[in-house]
Amino acid sequence: MHGSDAPGSRLIAFGGGRLDRVDHVRSNPVLLAEAFASAQARRVVLDGLEPVVVDGHLVMEPLPADGLIEHHALLGVDERQQPIFAELLADAPDTLFATPRSRALADEVPGHEVALYGAARSLLAWHARHRFCSVCGQRTAPAKAGWARQCESCRAEHFPRVDPVVIMLAEHRGRVLLGRQHGWPAGRYSALAGFVEPGETLEEAVVREIREEAGVVTRSVRYVASQPWPFPSSLMVACMAQADDDALKIDENEIEHAFWCDEAGVRAAMAGEDGAPFLAPPPMAIAWHLLRYWLDERGSEGQVADRGPSA
Amino acid sequence: MHGSDAPGSRLIAFGGGRLDRVDHVRSNPVLLAEAFASAQARRVVLDGLEPVVVDGHLVMEPLPADGLIEHHALLGVDERQQPIFAELLADAPDTLFATPRSRALADEVPGHEVALYGAARSLLAWHARHRFCSVCGQRTAPAKAGWARQCESCRAEHFPRVDPVVIMLAEHRGRVLLGRQHGWPAGRYSALAGFVEPGETLEEAVVREIREEAGVVTRSVRYVASQPWPFPSSLMVACMAQADDDALKIDENEIEHAFWCDEAGVRAAMAGEDGAPFLAPPPMAIAWHLLRYWLDERGSEGQVADRGPSA
Repeated sequence: MHGSDAPGSRLIAFGGGRLDRVDHVRSNPVLLAEAFASAQARRVVLDGLEPVVVDGHLVMEPLPADGLIEHHALLGVDERQQPIFAELLADAPDTLFATPRSRALADEVPGHEVALYGAARSLLAWHARHRFCSVCGQRTAPAKAGWARQCESCRAEHFPRVDPVVIMLAEHRGRVLLGRQHGWPAGRYSALAGFVEPGETLEEAVVREIREEAGVVTRSVRYVASQPWPFPSSLMVACMAQADDDALKIDENEIEHAFWCDEAGVRAAMAGEDGAPFLAPPPMAIAWHLLRYWLDERGSEGQVADRGPSA
Repeated sequence: MHGSDAPGSRLIAFGGGRLDRVDHVRSNPVLLAEAFASAQARRVVLDGLEPVVVDGHLVMEPLPADGLIEHHALLGVDERQQPIFAELLADAPDTLFATPRSRALADEVPGHEVALYGAARSLLAWHARHRFCSVCGQRTAPAKAGWARQCESCRAEHFPRVDPVVIMLAEHRGRVLLGRQHGWPAGRYSALAGFVEPGETLEEAVVREIREEAGVVTRSVRYVASQPWPFPSSLMVACMAQADDDALKIDENEIEHAFWCDEAGVRAAMAGEDGAPFLAPPPMAIAWHLLRYWLDERGSEGQVADRGPSA
């Protein structure tokens, strides 16, 4: 789960942010105005919700002299003590989902810039879809340096969404369960996934989703890693689970197909080999890390087993 | 992390639900109408958002003959194949936060009924606060058997919130960091906690919150367990973290006080002893389980250490 911060590294994409989020500044109008007025302050240049990259970095620019603080969110303060802002969108974004440009970013800029972009993207998309109060229908205005909105009429406060999603590999006798959604690139398979619902633990969501999508009963859920996924605001929670049985009953409304893949097949797919049984998810997806984790674990299990008799 | 389903058991409260959420029924108007029309169907009786308990169980009632399906959410189907509904609130709830009656429930009814109540409470509170579209300000209507709302004007879909919260013990040389919020009962201390923000992993949220609230730098975050917390819609994610140093710098806006407590102090508090250094959180809180987990782990570490020399 570790790696360098270089573009295309094996760090979990959209994690590894280096900004200090300076929560104490957000709610303090004096400190916030100071940060906004600072000659050091920068804002990340975006094209709508899309990243803008030059020479291997996100483009940053000084704040314009006529910029309004209420049109900006304070993302945090960087290692050089520069306050970093993002300008709220004037118009609704074209899409909330991943685009070729946003998907390419993880291979183009350092990991901590990918994380900065992800936080900005989630936050701006949330503002764009929350201009009105869900309680009373009246207009809301940004608050807390862009980390909240407040209704101008009923004063209800609203906070950015973070939607937890479980993404998981069921395992059965040395094989893992992979599925593909309708419309994915040909041959692409990945871990099953679904949103966590009110009233369930992460572990219960894992068991429910695997049963709903593939008809497989699982237990012994183990947490592996997490990833912010800014399309628009998921928190991916990657887990392993043990299946009791390998019989599949696929819900074709949810997924197009699923199959059990053995270790050799996963290794071939992760190595991008011709003739691999499936096309692996890209390294920017936490599913890639989950498959890598499973292979590494099997590797070390093999070693433990090898060492066993001589211990 | 296991326990019986009896009232007051050590199961994680609000987890352990037994309803099949029958996702395939929610989006299928024919199946949903069948479930609603079934003589088997029941709805959970609530007083606003508060539970109603008789003889150690939540009160359930048949659906009224004049009941409207669009005023109900389908919570799921129970083990006797009874579809279980909850009626949406006509008015705004008095409070979204925990009340004496809702807090008492975990000691009054079986764990799976506590879970059913929690799911209903989160869902109904969400509906009550989302009668209008955050995108355009017009009215929304319930959809998908109460698991979504849709704008009657712009057709935007809205889904129930689940807000991930990290709750964690920093550990330093055999002591754990406990804090108390302003207004808590006298002597009560618990694990630190805070909402996960867009653009961070769970692990990064743990590190950020401990640093913000107590000025302590941590690393090596480990996931322990999760809990749905329906006041109104949190998903508590409990973790351990290792502190580099025990110097405290408390943010008094966030917490009133914090201190490092040793194993003997935690054991005394968890046993409810007079003279314990703090009043432990109640067993319905995941913080209780986290403290229990830490004690158990130290116990087994002790055992491992004891076994070490003879191995």
